Parts: sequence; structure tokens; C-alpha cells
Amino acid sequence: MREFDFVEWIRSQSAFDPAVVAVGPGDDCAVIIRGGERVLITTDQALDGVHFKLAEHGPEAAGRKAMARNLSDIAAMAGKPVGAVASVAVPKGFARKDAEAVYRGLRGVGDEFACPLVGGDVACWDGPLALTVTVFGRPGGIEPVLRSGAKVGDAICVTGQLGGAWRTKRHLTFTPRIREARQLAAQYGLHAMIDVSDGIAPDLAHLCDSSGVGAEIVAADVPVHPDAGSLEAALGDGEDYELLFTLPADRAEQLLRSQPLEVKVRKIGLVVADKAKVLVQPDGKREDLAGKGWEHKT
Amino acid sequence: MREFDFVEWIRSQSAFDPAVVAVGPGDDCAVIIRGGERVLITTDQALDGVHFKLAEHGPEAAGRKAMARNLSDIAAMAGKPVGAVASVAVPKGFARKDAEAVYRGLRGVGDEFACPLVGGDVACWDGPLALTVTVFGRPGGIEPVLRSGAKVGDAICVTGQLGGAWRTKRHLTFTPRIREARQLAAQYGLHAMIDVSDGIAPDLAHLCDSSGVGAEIVAADVPVHPDAGSLEAALGDGEDYELLFTLPADRAEQLLRSQPLEVKVRKIGLVVADKAKVLVQPDGKREDLAGKGWEHKT
Repeated sequence: MREFDFVEWIRSQSAFDPAVVAVGPGDDCAVIIRGGERVLITTDQALDGVHFKLAEHGPEAAGRKAMARNLSDIAAMAGKPVGAVASVAVPKGFARKDAEAVYRGLRGVGDEFACPLVGGDVACWDGPLALTVTVFGRPGGIEPVLRSGAKVGDAICVTGQLGGAWRTKRHLTFTPRIREARQLAAQYGLHAMIDVSDGIAPDLAHLCDSSGVGAEIVAADVPVHPDAGSLEAALGDGEDYELLFTLPADRAEQLLRSQPLEVKVRKIGLVVADKAKVLVQPDGKREDLAGKGWEHKT
Repeated sequence: MREFDFVEWIRSQSAFDPAVVAVGPGDDCAVIIRGGERVLITTDQALDGVHFKLAEHGPEAAGRKAMARNLSDIAAMAGKPVGAVASVAVPKGFARKDAEAVYRGLRGVGDEFACPLVGGDVACWDGPLALTVTVFGRPGGIEPVLRSGAKVGDAICVTGQLGGAWRTKRHLTFTPRIREARQLAAQYGLHAMIDVSDGIAPDLAHLCDSSGVGAEIVAADVPVHPDAGSLEAALGDGEDYELLFTLPADRAEQLLRSQPLEVKVRKIGLVVADKAKVLVQPDGKREDLAGKGWEHKT
């Protein structure tokens, strides 16, 4: 079962009251309306053997990642966290000290972003350690940046460098780009944004498909992380949790000139009308960007 | 690891800004404040081998239960659902049709209570099927009923009959008592409420401990379900998802006389100042109610 297909199927099943649900499934967060204000909601799992290896990485890193992945989804909408709930399925015989370490991991990165853990559920079972976190946030004065707002002619930019995150454990230690996303959205009129969890090849495809546009990525401009080793790894490893976003070309120029963030921002391509997602090689050869990403498959 | 102890430990670690978090961990829902309005939030898991048996009960029943358990927590606060997100960890090789059945289960009972699924996360892994649902709700004109409001002299009442829910699969088919809870809270001035998930022995203890009171339960007045077979089963089987609540004695009399709900309401005891939870047998013998419940243990 391919999970993106399944989420697509779920979307096709759903119809919402727009007075209650401003954004439904298929963006980084859902947006519901309460008391005239919007609440961002996102949920993500961290599963032993998929998102972390308990024996190798330990329980605190697992907890941290479960919370940080969700905070990264709040960042992808330029939101501000409000709070979180966590469900924890622990293997039978799991030690109390390890459960406390899971909680410290969840709590530590939550506290960094003023995202208290307000509730949860713990159960023991025969399966591996499974953590599910739901984070709710608020716009906090900044219009949420959706995946669906990209416009033809926009520059496509990315924070930081990409690839090799799993091999070097950066996927456990990354800092959710909440501050960066809010600064970018407040100052540079972003049109669309997503966090890079699966890799820019598939994540850019999500953004383009949501926006009804295509993209041309300049291979030489993709920031390959020193850990990545190759352009392919930078495009497809995933787990970078950097921000991938589009904005008008003139605003992108200002942004690239001023470099206002701690982390460097780079332009890697352009939004185009043709719906293909193309990688332009230095020799001018045009390749299909699709299928270069990483995805959980059965 | 005993899970209640762990949740207790988590509570002891947390301090909240009361302007944002009105109710933190330890009640049926957390309550956060957005735009001057309160949002109820609850999360619960349904795990293969713990809360359902996939091979025996099938994927649709599993999905239904995952959503219904959370709706029952919203009911326990007399809330009204707004929406839900679901995380699904599916075993490798899980069939698409089974995944769709999980979704139909989630969606069906959600739709019954106007609780749309607005987002989610799906991943494949080496573990068993694990479902985590987070439901958010609103007071909807009715003050949330907490566990902590029970007063000495209150009558203790329960909806329906108790025990035997696992044996007879009622734990998969129960209807969350949202309508009943709202009617009771609106008309009868409830002081405290909880849903019966672990069994009234442990759930009453949660309610009493939150309220700083004790209870005397009259054994002969406990409604033993025909499926249950024994008073012990009625007290300790759990998974009934009935409402256990307290209210002033005179309001309880009105309620018992008028029986305004489809389901019968019964008085089973009294809130007392002494913090013990006591079961009074027909011969007047007083037993400790503690330890008669059911709890996941490692």
C-alpha cells in the first residue's frame, strides 16, 4: 500500500463545512475555526524501525523526534505551536526509566517552542514502541502558508542543505524551523510552503500538485549536504525538515541578498505552468524529478 | 510499568499557563483556550491485541473503536465534537481494502457525531495495527464537566448496565454517550463526570481522587449487565463507555424519577468526605473498592 495514494483516497472521501474546517487533509496541518480564530492541527507518528531505531537511538531521541516532526509541520504553515497531546504504545516490559526518557524527549523540544504536553495516553502491548503526537497551533498574526498557493513565475527556495540526514542522525536532532518560517512568511510574502520530510523530489511534487503548477529545478543549485554524498541523496533522502517554499521572484531576490536567517536560504528553481517537475542538469539535459524521493512502502 | 502511575508522573512534571491551558493532563480531555473559546482535546489509541484483535474483529471494527473511544472522552466532559485526526500504523503487506475498512470504521462513527476526519498520518511498519485518534471538541453552550467537581453529599449515578463488554463485543459497537451527557449536563447540574473505560472501580477512584473526596457504592444498586455474570465483572471489566457522574442529591432524585434518556440512569452510591472508596454489601459489610478494576500492565 502506498501511503500517499491512501491519503489521496481519504481526501477524495471527505467534504467539510467550510465554516468549521478551513483546510482539510492534504496540507501540513488541517485548519479548523473556533471562536472566529483558526486552530492548526497536525498529527504524525514516530515508529520503532521506521522513524527511529530504539535499540540504537534510545528512547529520548525517539520522543524528541515524535514531537519535532509535528512542530516541523506547524512550521511548514508558518504557525505558532499552542500545545500537544501524545499517545505512547510501549512494548511489554518497557522500563519506567525509558518511558520517562521518551517523555523528556517529547517535552524538551516542546518546551523550546512553548508547546506544552497537555494530555496523552499510554498503553502497553506486544508491538514495538510507537509514538503519536498531535500538535495544535495558531496563526499568531501571520496568515498560514499553504501548499496550494504557488504561482507561475515564483522562485522556489529552500533553507539549509539536504541529504544524508538518516545516516548521520540529523533526523533525530534537527531543530524545527518555526522561527525561520514565521520570519520568512512575515517579511517576504511566501506563496506556498512545505517541510522537507520525504525529500525535495516528492515534497516539491506535493506542493506543485496542490497548487496546480509544475517546477524546474536547477540541479547545480540544489544544496547538497556534505553528509549526503550525491545530488540523488539530496533530492531523495528526506528527513531534512528544512523549509521548501515559493515566493515572487523579486521578493526572492531581496531575500537571497539580505539572508536574514541564521540558516542560509537558496533558490533552486522556478514555478512553471507546465505541470511536469523537471530537473535541469548542467549540460541542459532535462530529467523527470519524480520518483527520486523516499517513501514508506509495504 | 503501570500506566496510571506514569500519567500521574507526567502531570507532576507539568506547569501550564492558565491563559492557554484551562485543563491539563489527567481529565478525560485537556482544555485549551483559543480566541476566548475553549477547545477540548483528547487522544486515545486502539492497538491490535490490546483494544481489539484484528484477526477476530476485522479492520472496520478496529477503526470504529479508535474513533468511538475518543468520542466517549468528549462525552465525559459533556462536549460536542468538532473534528478529528487519525494516525494509522499498518503492518507491512496490509491490504488496501483493509486500510479502507479502517477508514470507514473511523469515519462512520465520526459522521454520526458530526466529527469529520480532517487530517492524519499513515505509515507501514513491522509492528501490529496501531490506531491513534485525537478528537477536538467544544463546550457548545454547556460548561465542561470535569472529574474534579464532585462534592460531599452528591449522588453517584451511572448510565446503562456494566460488565461483560469485551466478551460480547459491545466494546466494539458501543455508542458514545455524547447526546446523553449533554442532556444530563444541561438539565441536571452535574458536578463531575468520567466515562467508564477501565471499570467503575478504577474510574470512580480517578473521579474521587481528582475531587478530593471518597465514595460509598451500594453493591445491590450496581447495574450488572446480563452479559457480565457477576458484580465483580460489572465493577472491573471496563470497556462499557457508560457515563459515571455525580450531582446534588435532589437533582438526582428528579433525574431518577423522570428518566429522560433512552438509556436508564441509576444511582449507585454517595460521595463522602472520607477518601476511601467503599463497596457496601447487602449484609452491611464494607469492602475496599480499589483494585477491582482492569488495567493494562507490563
